[in-house]
Amino acid sequence: MKQAKWIWYPGEFEHFHHTLVSFRRQEAGCDYPCVWPVSRPEISARFCKSFTAARDFVFTAVTHAKGMVRIGGGLYPVNKPISVKAGAYDVTAELFDPDAFPSLYINSDFLITDESWKAELFDAKPVPAACEPAFFSPVDDPAVFPFCYREIKPVSTHAVENGVLYDFGQEQFGPVRITLPADAEIMLVYGESREEALDPENAIIRETLTAADPPDRPARAFRYIAVFGKKAEDVRLEAKLEYLPVEDRAFFSSDEPELNEIWNVCVRTFHLNTREFFLDGVKRDRWVWSGDAYQSFMIARCLYNDPGVTERTITALLGKPPYLRHVNTINDYSAFLIISVWEHLEATGRFSFVRTIWPNLKALYAFIVSRLDENGYAVRRDGDWIFVDWGELDKEDPVCFEQIVLWRAHSAMAALSAAMGEDDIYTAAADALKTRILRDFWDEEKGAFIDSFTSGRRFVTRQTNVFAVLYGLVQGKQKQRVIRNALKNPDLPAITTPYFKLYELLALCEIGDISAAQDFISAYWGGMLEQGATSVWEAFDPRQTGAEHYAMYGSPYGKSLCHAWGSGPILLFCRFIAGVKTASAGKTFRVAPTPGHWQSFSVTVPVGEGAVLISYNAPEVTVRASVPGGVFSDGKKETPLEAGKTYSFILT
Amino acid sequence: MKQAKWIWYPGEFEHFHHTLVSFRRQEAGCDYPCVWPVSRPEISARFCKSFTAARDFVFTAVTHAKGMVRIGGGLYPVNKPISVKAGAYDVTAELFDPDAFPSLYINSDFLITDESWKAELFDAKPVPAACEPAFFSPVDDPAVFPFCYREIKPVSTHAVENGVLYDFGQEQFGPVRITLPADAEIMLVYGESREEALDPENAIIRETLTAADPPDRPARAFRYIAVFGKKAEDVRLEAKLEYLPVEDRAFFSSDEPELNEIWNVCVRTFHLNTREFFLDGVKRDRWVWSGDAYQSFMIARCLYNDPGVTERTITALLGKPPYLRHVNTINDYSAFLIISVWEHLEATGRFSFVRTIWPNLKALYAFIVSRLDENGYAVRRDGDWIFVDWGELDKEDPVCFEQIVLWRAHSAMAALSAAMGEDDIYTAAADALKTRILRDFWDEEKGAFIDSFTSGRRFVTRQTNVFAVLYGLVQGKQKQRVIRNALKNPDLPAITTPYFKLYELLALCEIGDISAAQDFISAYWGGMLEQGATSVWEAFDPRQTGAEHYAMYGSPYGKSLCHAWGSGPILLFCRFIAGVKTASAGKTFRVAPTPGHWQSFSVTVPVGEGAVLISYNAPEVTVRASVPGGVFSDGKKETPLEAGKTYSFILT
Repeated sequence: MKQAKWIWYPGEFEHFHHTLVSFRRQEAGCDYPCVWPVSRPEISARFCKSFTAARDFVFTAVTHAKGMVRIGGGLYPVNKPISVKAGAYDVTAELFDPDAFPSLYINSDFLITDESWKAELFDAKPVPAACEPAFFSPVDDPAVFPFCYREIKPVSTHAVENGVLYDFGQEQFGPVRITLPADAEIMLVYGESREEALDPENAIIRETLTAADPPDRPARAFRYIAVFGKKAEDVRLEAKLEYLPVEDRAFFSSDEPELNEIWNVCVRTFHLNTREFFLDGVKRDRWVWSGDAYQSFMIARCLYNDPGVTERTITALLGKPPYLRHVNTINDYSAFLIISVWEHLEATGRFSFVRTIWPNLKALYAFIVSRLDENGYAVRRDGDWIFVDWGELDKEDPVCFEQIVLWRAHSAMAALSAAMGEDDIYTAAADALKTRILRDFWDEEKGAFIDSFTSGRRFVTRQTNVFAVLYGLVQGKQKQRVIRNALKNPDLPAITTPYFKLYELLALCEIGDISAAQDFISAYWGGMLEQGATSVWEAFDPRQTGAEHYAMYGSPYGKSLCHAWGSGPILLFCRFIAGVKTASAGKTFRVAPTPGHWQSFSVTVPVGEGAVLISYNAPEVTVRASVPGGVFSDGKKETPLEAGKTYSFILT
Repeated sequence: MKQAKWIWYPGEFEHFHHTLVSFRRQEAGCDYPCVWPVSRPEISARFCKSFTAARDFVFTAVTHAKGMVRIGGGLYPVNKPISVKAGAYDVTAELFDPDAFPSLYINSDFLITDESWKAELFDAKPVPAACEPAFFSPVDDPAVFPFCYREIKPVSTHAVENGVLYDFGQEQFGPVRITLPADAEIMLVYGESREEALDPENAIIRETLTAADPPDRPARAFRYIAVFGKKAEDVRLEAKLEYLPVEDRAFFSSDEPELNEIWNVCVRTFHLNTREFFLDGVKRDRWVWSGDAYQSFMIARCLYNDPGVTERTITALLGKPPYLRHVNTINDYSAFLIISVWEHLEATGRFSFVRTIWPNLKALYAFIVSRLDENGYAVRRDGDWIFVDWGELDKEDPVCFEQIVLWRAHSAMAALSAAMGEDDIYTAAADALKTRILRDFWDEEKGAFIDSFTSGRRFVTRQTNVFAVLYGLVQGKQKQRVIRNALKNPDLPAITTPYFKLYELLALCEIGDISAAQDFISAYWGGMLEQGATSVWEAFDPRQTGAEHYAMYGSPYGKSLCHAWGSGPILLFCRFIAGVKTASAGKTFRVAPTPGHWQSFSVTVPVGEGAVLISYNAPEVTVRASVPGGVFSDGKKETPLEAGKTYSFILT
């Protein structure tokens, strides 16, 4: 027999854990609920399988749910042995679980649970059951996320006024066990910075505890933990790192320690935010945001090349119909989610995953389309948030940026429908929209796209034009004008968020301006490290000093000091500096390093099931791929790369 | 200040309790999940209110959920006092509750929770918050249904082989507390009949208990309870009746004890099935079925004239979009639900309730329409159950009965859309369908409607033709032909289910054949009482004897002995024999008694906020209404009824 696995209806595992994640945020001593609707799993599900038993046998339908098994015309309780005579059967388990989601495990001589079972939500539409590799033993519980734990010790412990301060040396995430003397009453304060931990009034995460409270406190982000109050010095504190054991498949080293440290801190930050799903930040919001996730998907393809977290994140973000609001309430984020699915399929060839979410993705697309105006433009409807980016943008409807991402979403749906073997009803909408964007938003005098043609302000922003370049809305001379008049125009307001900065750096790299990207990496990420960052911050302004760095959103410690989008250099290093781009679901790849002004480094980048190692020592680059399908390009000539063979080239 | 009340998002109370109800069925020692998708409440909700405090004050946001309060720019935990300065505020509570549904209670000097708050599901569509009268104190919990309990004692206790049998004298429903000796291991067997309780192998509800199990067993149906096993005689058993204190507003008495007993047993049966929602039966299925509920709504309008249970039942059955299957998976039942809403609005004028469910009702209608064929006929699609009735029907698509109820549903939507102030997009569909039904299903030679025109069988059934009469599809001579050739045609197969029997009796009464209905009541309900019934059975066949009566669905005790649809005589007594029919949401009513062959009886029937008492002593009838709006009709002359005045008429 094959390996028995826990099974459930596809998506329910993700919806369940997404509900947990969405309601774990805490702030100012409050439980801070997610501010958009979160799809929860259904209570009940049915699992079916036809099989033949060569002889009499016994099986048990193991489940944490309630319900029953129908077999051979009889009803049987779950979690008790069921004796079956030799013969051919249809077996059905009908389960309900109001606390989690129905899941099932059977391991017996003639019947095991795996993806060959059908699952349905009593909707008469059976589909192949879903599994996760971590759940294969009868004592497993798919409602408990399979994190790993490792004990961590403070690197220092200091007495402070009215308490004790523990420093764990760097950003951490995990549960803490507090053992209190019987009559103690303490305040437990978590700090990503020392200042935050020592400021109980303003720290984001804090709680009052007595011996009556459970000693095990939920997993939270911290570098520092302070214990204040009566008998604080008698309190015993034990901490664990909670983490997902995702393996790195990309590596970087250079002879510049600062670059190595930037890479390492980016990787560490990204791992801390790689959990059930890709989080935005581990202290706050601890939510799953589509815009943030879109960048995490790109980074993850470089660093992990493992579809697991990406697919869970897409499934969670997509949720289930009916769609009442945009993803995270943001119009652009709905479009990014559709685009993410396309890019994921292109990179991985995971058709079976896309098939699972395709009906819901079409429903989300229908929701988007239902809210367009008479010209097919995305505009602000009740409950919508036209986000784009923090910073000055002209958001008078229709907004150019929204149309560019919508155009890309139409195109993504066209490509996805082809992959799903369905008729393309999307390309016509994409083409019509492109024509209209070029007609309405292109400002010939400014030689760039304006944010809004209705406001009369003719405002040109980097954000809009970065996407016109990134998504290939313009080509040739028009593209060069956009680059000159917007991307490289020093008179335009600078992008201030690291979120959008990554898109800008990608665009700069796309147009070959690697040096500008390298300079920015050194100044921005290097600058953060100089301030003592042990993970990448949500934002960084080199003009600030001391605890000013920790303030954001009107709160002195409002800033997240471990934010996924800060890990963008991983992407820049792999895709542009090492220059490895995959196609055909990883079966082919192109290596075209652009070292910029860096003199010596080596990068390992995963491709398909293997990896390619690029080592640069100006002006020579050596390349060795462990898998076939590669081509090296120095910009002029292309050289096929044989697997396992080392090649040397001189870059000029 | 007004009365503070617990508030929640409309429908969530019903969806939550419906999930509990839908998964309480047990059979053969199994938990037997509901076989259709059940809509559960959302995890999170937001509650908002603008108010002004004349002076500083303190309030607490009381909730069983988690979350926080936003007021005056600050975040505050729930369930802790919040101090507020005098001034004008917008207050928001954002709550989440994975175990039940978010609900909120505030009672303070300047801020109380009631229907004036707005609630939303983070969908940017705030609506007035909902309440239930039972929840008005801070210690209440809307997740606990407000049943009442009364201790009940067995009327006899007998030693039986290997155990003890308790007889509670009549059908009961409630929890049982079992106190076991430390080393006891018993089998607890519930029986609606003595035979069932004494047959642990085949009883529907049975369980094995040891002292380690919780002593309080869930509320279940029984008349008998048997305790078998080691030390059964040392087991202490305490039982309670669990009930909803709904007041009767209809009463019947006559000098024929059998008729009084039929009324009383019908009332008792109906009360036992009147719970969170109208159940089909208290032992089995213990589910909410739309066809059964449709009859319960009619009965409830006579007996209780209280919208509470009816509206809860409609809300639960309707659930929430997206609609993946018909209500209870049955095409006819979706139509009945829409018709029920219309009839409820007509009878009660409860516009505000209909407004609450109107978006979902339109979504259900859209689901129905999406599955019609090119001719607008309802046909069997994947996952559909064309039920109509048990018994021989020609179900070759399209089926006439389905089209008649669909025609009525179109008409109901037309009337409801007018009441909601929306455009009527429904009447045209109704008219077109009626024309088509009369063209395709009317068989001129048979002078009646045939079930199917595609099968070639030209099968005429009572079921189809009963509804053609009941719903007024035919009039005049055509109606008389239907009556002669179908309803009163002895050659057609008899209706065998009490479910459809009620429709047939209603049709017989509508066409004035009261005596036939009275004869059937005496034979069928009287026959059950002769067999010792203490509540009305799901079905009754006078040819059976002994325990044969308890078998159904292939199981020796599969029959429900307390089934709501058996309470139909209440409707027949009030609406036809006493002859009270209300209109204009109960503001007007017509009294036209048709005593049939009964010589002496009196019936009290609720009308609006009052009641009308009809006393008949052949040939004289006295009528007295407590409210204005009534008219008496003897079939020839109409006499207005002044409130509080007694009138006498001679019926000829």
